[in-house]
Amino acid sequence: MKKISAVLVLFFPFFSVNGQQPNPAQYVNPLIGTQKMGHTYPGATVPFGSVQLSPDTDQQPHNIGGKYNKDAYKYCAGYQYDDSSIVGFSHTHFSGTGHSDLGDFLIMPSVGELQLEPGSKADPKSGFRSAFSHANEIAEPGYYKVKLDDDNIWAEMTATTRVGFHQYTFPKSDNAHIIFDLMHGIYNYDDKNVWTFVRVENDRTIVGYRQTNGWARTRTVYFAMEFSKPFSSYGFKNFGKEDYKGFWRKFDQSKNFPEMAGKQIRAYFDFKTEDGEKVNIKFSLSPVSTEGAMKNLKAEIPHWDFERTKREAKAEWNKELGKIDVTAPSRDDLVNFYTALYHTFLSPTVYMDVDGKYKGLDQNTHQANGFTNYTTFSLWDTYRALHPFFNIVQPKRNRDMVRSMMAHYDQSVHKMLPVWSHYANENWCMIGYHSVSVIADAIVKNNIEGIDAGKTLDAMAQTARTKYYDGLEHYMKMGYVPEDKNSSSVSKTLEYAYDDWCIAQAAKKLNRTDIFNEFSKRSENWKNVYDSSSGFMRPKMSDGKFREKFDALQTHDQGFIEGNAWNYSLYVPHDPAEMIEMMGGKAKFSKHMDELFTMHLPDEFFAETEDITREGIIGNYVHGNEPAHHAAYLYNWTDDKWKTQERVRMILKNQYRPTPDGLGGNDDCGQMSAWYLFSALGFYPVAPGSDQYALGSPVIKTATIKLENGKTLSIEALNQSDKNVYVEKVLVNGKQIDRPYLTHAEIINGGKITFYMSETAKR
Amino acid sequence: MKKISAVLVLFFPFFSVNGQQPNPAQYVNPLIGTQKMGHTYPGATVPFGSVQLSPDTDQQPHNIGGKYNKDAYKYCAGYQYDDSSIVGFSHTHFSGTGHSDLGDFLIMPSVGELQLEPGSKADPKSGFRSAFSHANEIAEPGYYKVKLDDDNIWAEMTATTRVGFHQYTFPKSDNAHIIFDLMHGIYNYDDKNVWTFVRVENDRTIVGYRQTNGWARTRTVYFAMEFSKPFSSYGFKNFGKEDYKGFWRKFDQSKNFPEMAGKQIRAYFDFKTEDGEKVNIKFSLSPVSTEGAMKNLKAEIPHWDFERTKREAKAEWNKELGKIDVTAPSRDDLVNFYTALYHTFLSPTVYMDVDGKYKGLDQNTHQANGFTNYTTFSLWDTYRALHPFFNIVQPKRNRDMVRSMMAHYDQSVHKMLPVWSHYANENWCMIGYHSVSVIADAIVKNNIEGIDAGKTLDAMAQTARTKYYDGLEHYMKMGYVPEDKNSSSVSKTLEYAYDDWCIAQAAKKLNRTDIFNEFSKRSENWKNVYDSSSGFMRPKMSDGKFREKFDALQTHDQGFIEGNAWNYSLYVPHDPAEMIEMMGGKAKFSKHMDELFTMHLPDEFFAETEDITREGIIGNYVHGNEPAHHAAYLYNWTDDKWKTQERVRMILKNQYRPTPDGLGGNDDCGQMSAWYLFSALGFYPVAPGSDQYALGSPVIKTATIKLENGKTLSIEALNQSDKNVYVEKVLVNGKQIDRPYLTHAEIINGGKITFYMSETAKR
Repeated sequence: MKKISAVLVLFFPFFSVNGQQPNPAQYVNPLIGTQKMGHTYPGATVPFGSVQLSPDTDQQPHNIGGKYNKDAYKYCAGYQYDDSSIVGFSHTHFSGTGHSDLGDFLIMPSVGELQLEPGSKADPKSGFRSAFSHANEIAEPGYYKVKLDDDNIWAEMTATTRVGFHQYTFPKSDNAHIIFDLMHGIYNYDDKNVWTFVRVENDRTIVGYRQTNGWARTRTVYFAMEFSKPFSSYGFKNFGKEDYKGFWRKFDQSKNFPEMAGKQIRAYFDFKTEDGEKVNIKFSLSPVSTEGAMKNLKAEIPHWDFERTKREAKAEWNKELGKIDVTAPSRDDLVNFYTALYHTFLSPTVYMDVDGKYKGLDQNTHQANGFTNYTTFSLWDTYRALHPFFNIVQPKRNRDMVRSMMAHYDQSVHKMLPVWSHYANENWCMIGYHSVSVIADAIVKNNIEGIDAGKTLDAMAQTARTKYYDGLEHYMKMGYVPEDKNSSSVSKTLEYAYDDWCIAQAAKKLNRTDIFNEFSKRSENWKNVYDSSSGFMRPKMSDGKFREKFDALQTHDQGFIEGNAWNYSLYVPHDPAEMIEMMGGKAKFSKHMDELFTMHLPDEFFAETEDITREGIIGNYVHGNEPAHHAAYLYNWTDDKWKTQERVRMILKNQYRPTPDGLGGNDDCGQMSAWYLFSALGFYPVAPGSDQYALGSPVIKTATIKLENGKTLSIEALNQSDKNVYVEKVLVNGKQIDRPYLTHAEIINGGKITFYMSETAKR
Repeated sequence: MKKISAVLVLFFPFFSVNGQQPNPAQYVNPLIGTQKMGHTYPGATVPFGSVQLSPDTDQQPHNIGGKYNKDAYKYCAGYQYDDSSIVGFSHTHFSGTGHSDLGDFLIMPSVGELQLEPGSKADPKSGFRSAFSHANEIAEPGYYKVKLDDDNIWAEMTATTRVGFHQYTFPKSDNAHIIFDLMHGIYNYDDKNVWTFVRVENDRTIVGYRQTNGWARTRTVYFAMEFSKPFSSYGFKNFGKEDYKGFWRKFDQSKNFPEMAGKQIRAYFDFKTEDGEKVNIKFSLSPVSTEGAMKNLKAEIPHWDFERTKREAKAEWNKELGKIDVTAPSRDDLVNFYTALYHTFLSPTVYMDVDGKYKGLDQNTHQANGFTNYTTFSLWDTYRALHPFFNIVQPKRNRDMVRSMMAHYDQSVHKMLPVWSHYANENWCMIGYHSVSVIADAIVKNNIEGIDAGKTLDAMAQTARTKYYDGLEHYMKMGYVPEDKNSSSVSKTLEYAYDDWCIAQAAKKLNRTDIFNEFSKRSENWKNVYDSSSGFMRPKMSDGKFREKFDALQTHDQGFIEGNAWNYSLYVPHDPAEMIEMMGGKAKFSKHMDELFTMHLPDEFFAETEDITREGIIGNYVHGNEPAHHAAYLYNWTDDKWKTQERVRMILKNQYRPTPDGLGGNDDCGQMSAWYLFSALGFYPVAPGSDQYALGSPVIKTATIKLENGKTLSIEALNQSDKNVYVEKVLVNGKQIDRPYLTHAEIINGGKITFYMSETAKR
């Protein structure tokens, strides 16, 4: 390998990640997406880690006076790059979500007079929050460092899968504190807490849990926390409802009383520190118990060597990121690529103790036998590209994700696969039942080893037959969701139809004719909402007529969700050819697509488009939301395939930049990044559940994917440059192909794919 | 045995419980104590059962407008005999407590229009509650039946250890309901709920849990519920905070949606019923999980035969009650005796699943290996007579209770034995650390088999050294609790001194000289609060002077709790002789005692005496509260032992009556009843932790105690009658004894104790 690497370096000396010690992590900038709408977090985590230990720059209630508080949305990941103060460091964060939750267990060091209120952004000194500046901030995979200016404390953090490792370097003080805020949270900050429970086991160890009612309705996270040095005293304040007074008659519980509980509490621990003294905290999480949290803590970090854990976290990242070896025209491309790869490896997250115990959807404790249980399935987003990407780069993990989804199904009282699930909860966010896409894709791509595929198929069919789910009964009866019965009806009809096609594909693969027939038929339901008079998909009423009120530019109340008719009408990923035919044929469709990408979307329509910045739009094409993620590839079904190449390169360039504001929309648990990765490599899974990938235009120069089956896939883009966005021809293992797609076999069996790039489109 | 029984019947034909099928349960009237201050419940339970399925006649908030609501107190056991309507039947009840909690999972049948509010006492028809009358009510051990007049429904219930079995006989209705109220509770009714979670697994099975913050700060009870017939529809209403709206956008969750959660919810299940149709419900509890609750349900009642479970419950009661075979002068005496025995066998309650899993004080799930885990330790009450009684009649259970207390200790973050514990919580109620009395009594009486006695001793010592506990640091430093530092200081000083003596006794038995010395010394601390000028124990300040303000009749703010100086000053159970000497010698003390029993306590002082009716007082002697429970026996340490006999018989007669209002004070988890049982048998454990029982005056004619060691103790009171309250002589195995006490060996080794009763006192 060393020799080959040397050769590669010779050929592509400029930004190779090869060398003695492969260090792709150097290209990752976790700050990308932390500004504006990316909703990523900059803190420390390991690949798919349960702990995301990251600074929160504010906490905002989800509602104020019963009304939605728009500011809450900015803090979906806890951190906004434009802020100039940090409230503290909490242990759980979603990466790139649009709604949110989590933000559990905020830790904040301070010196001087104890402050138990966070204080305001305008005046950080009014509370325990502290000013900071990006000049004193380092964010790397598995490591985060910042100087807290108010008290001159350096904060560093790293992590293992289940343990956050803090390191605070204090000034000399007789009055140093670690504040432990159990009220802090992301979304619904002041009324999300249901209960918190804390035990001070000894002068270094604390355990407990926090139970919330937020996006996850019934959610509990357990913790164990250990200090590197004993605290001299401690206490807490209950900001919520007073306890039964008997407790308080007997003790002064506010000070040095080892048991704390309540709905709203903040605790603190006092130290004396020398100048430059480091106080470390190991903080572990468990889905099931404090006992489990203690086990995790002891198993994963049995020492106090912060540098060692930091090193190991970095190594773990390099191992995962190193699965794809890339060279590219510019360092920015590498930063974009590896940061996207980093973002795709953040979630779903491991959700079980070191001994395999996890909380199930039924709120019972279960044992994961023979698999790693994962949570945080943002499936409406991630079925599109993230899971297909995993089928190539993380096939084992994807199998375990399928197993986790099946465990969810087994534990579901609805007998449904997950829709949007996190932390032993179904939050029902968005639409469709896209678990079936993820599983069908795994089945079709033969990444189902060790899983009872027949059972997954039954689960898929059963899920798709849940009458009371979101208009399904109407859909099953009438072939579409009527808008007067259930809103966003067109989006639902289109996505159900695609999902049904996925089920049919899995059934075909498994020779289950009955299910194949049932769902093949359903998969054509998209046709029922196409309005030939307007040329768009359009909401239909239960009387069979299209709704009169209709505006193809508007997003809200037009029968769609997170997309207008222009974007959403393209959503027939499983049968673009038929769709194009219906919309007037290839030539007309190609023009229609051009219009999408080039028209001007007036501000009034943009204003109501959620989750994205103005930059998240190209013309009227909304890349910041997912429904049209496959759209640029649809030219492949026309005679203007070169337009796909052009558009894809434009999106890659416009929508992904190596800066904090570099993401034009929510990263959505890696979906936006997975789009980047596929497209950067030159192909994209327009219809997960098929074994085909539409060809686009790669942005890399070379990529070597080390597959888990031991094989290697090399991708080479000859004559690559910013100008040469067109693909002249594509060779698979030296043989030119005359079709606009690759097959999964061509990828997973390894070999070489060569793109010949050109400045001229091949019309 | 049969033959012996026959002989007994020959001698004492009149109210023997012997016969072909011993049926002592016939003498039990669970309604005794349900009126006024007894705080017992009339519903169905088995001995020490986890489920207490009982009617609740009202639900009262613990506080109204931030102030204590006196009416809550009336409903400590959910049922007040004077009420004329029933709200429903809930599954958990304390027997006889002074504070309260529980009342989980209320079930109520109804027909006609669905009502989801309970309605008012004044107008039961305004809600789902129903009028009832005692004429249509049957309460027996393990069985309760009542007619719900409003809807003409007969309700019956029985139970196993972990499962309540309901039977509702409906009229014909197209609109019959079972209401399932998860908001209902005892104490803190409207804000005790922290969270509730319910899943409708299928059209007959429901599981879930309820989490409360009441007397127990952090308490969760899990359930599983099965109907004998499928419901046709169901639904629920959330009376609390609204959920994250995403849940509700997708579904109409109010109807036929199988997952319910919230802080305040009531559910309902609809049926069609024929006239006279019975609908049964099996309802199981678990301390750890819904999975555990399902296991318990299937293991304990794997059928739908209500009569069978009822029969088995009765048989279980007869087995336990049959451990003492009694004859007595009147049926009333038998009713008093067996009802008292019934009440002593209600708690502590089994607190683990059929597979041994239970929730520990650390909120983790633990496995009870080799013992049955119990909860509900009302130790300030029950150390006095209940646990000593168990050391005779329920030694195995008492050992398991000690094991349960040790498990509590092991799981305690304070490393303390229980003070007042229930459902994996320490509620810290009342004072002292009387676990040590229970354990010392077991050690001294050799009922410690299979338990690491040395470890229990360390636990006792460790508990007694918890500086931050309730004035202990001062007590340890100064030899008393100073009233200016910690209120109820005299009661605390006296009880700590007694508890310390218990530790010393255990240490002596186990040859642990260090601990013996330490705690023997501490056990004399009672002397530090005796004020010779007033002749009473009296609050002392931290400057070493007695507090000036002092009123020996007042109860509140006099340095005592639940007792005035007259009653509490007698509290030196471990050294009455020394106490009497200090108080002026035998003769003076005897007169002092006479005054206690005969003086008139003005109403103003009674008014502030908690937990008792006017009848719970004899003179100024308060039997309805516990501190002076040993007092009547103190004459034994004077030359007027006959006065003990007279007073005891007076108390037995006045304070225990076979009527709903028959208990003069809270039964306190069996302590009041255990006092009755000991005294009725002729002896009483003045100082648990010693092996001596002070002699009194039995009220029975004969009693045969079938000991677990296979031996039999016969007690005979010759010439017994209501008038013959004096004991002429006592023979142990035919040999007259010349001391006023029995030893534990004389009891536990079996044999015969004969009292010769007389109308004349032996002066």
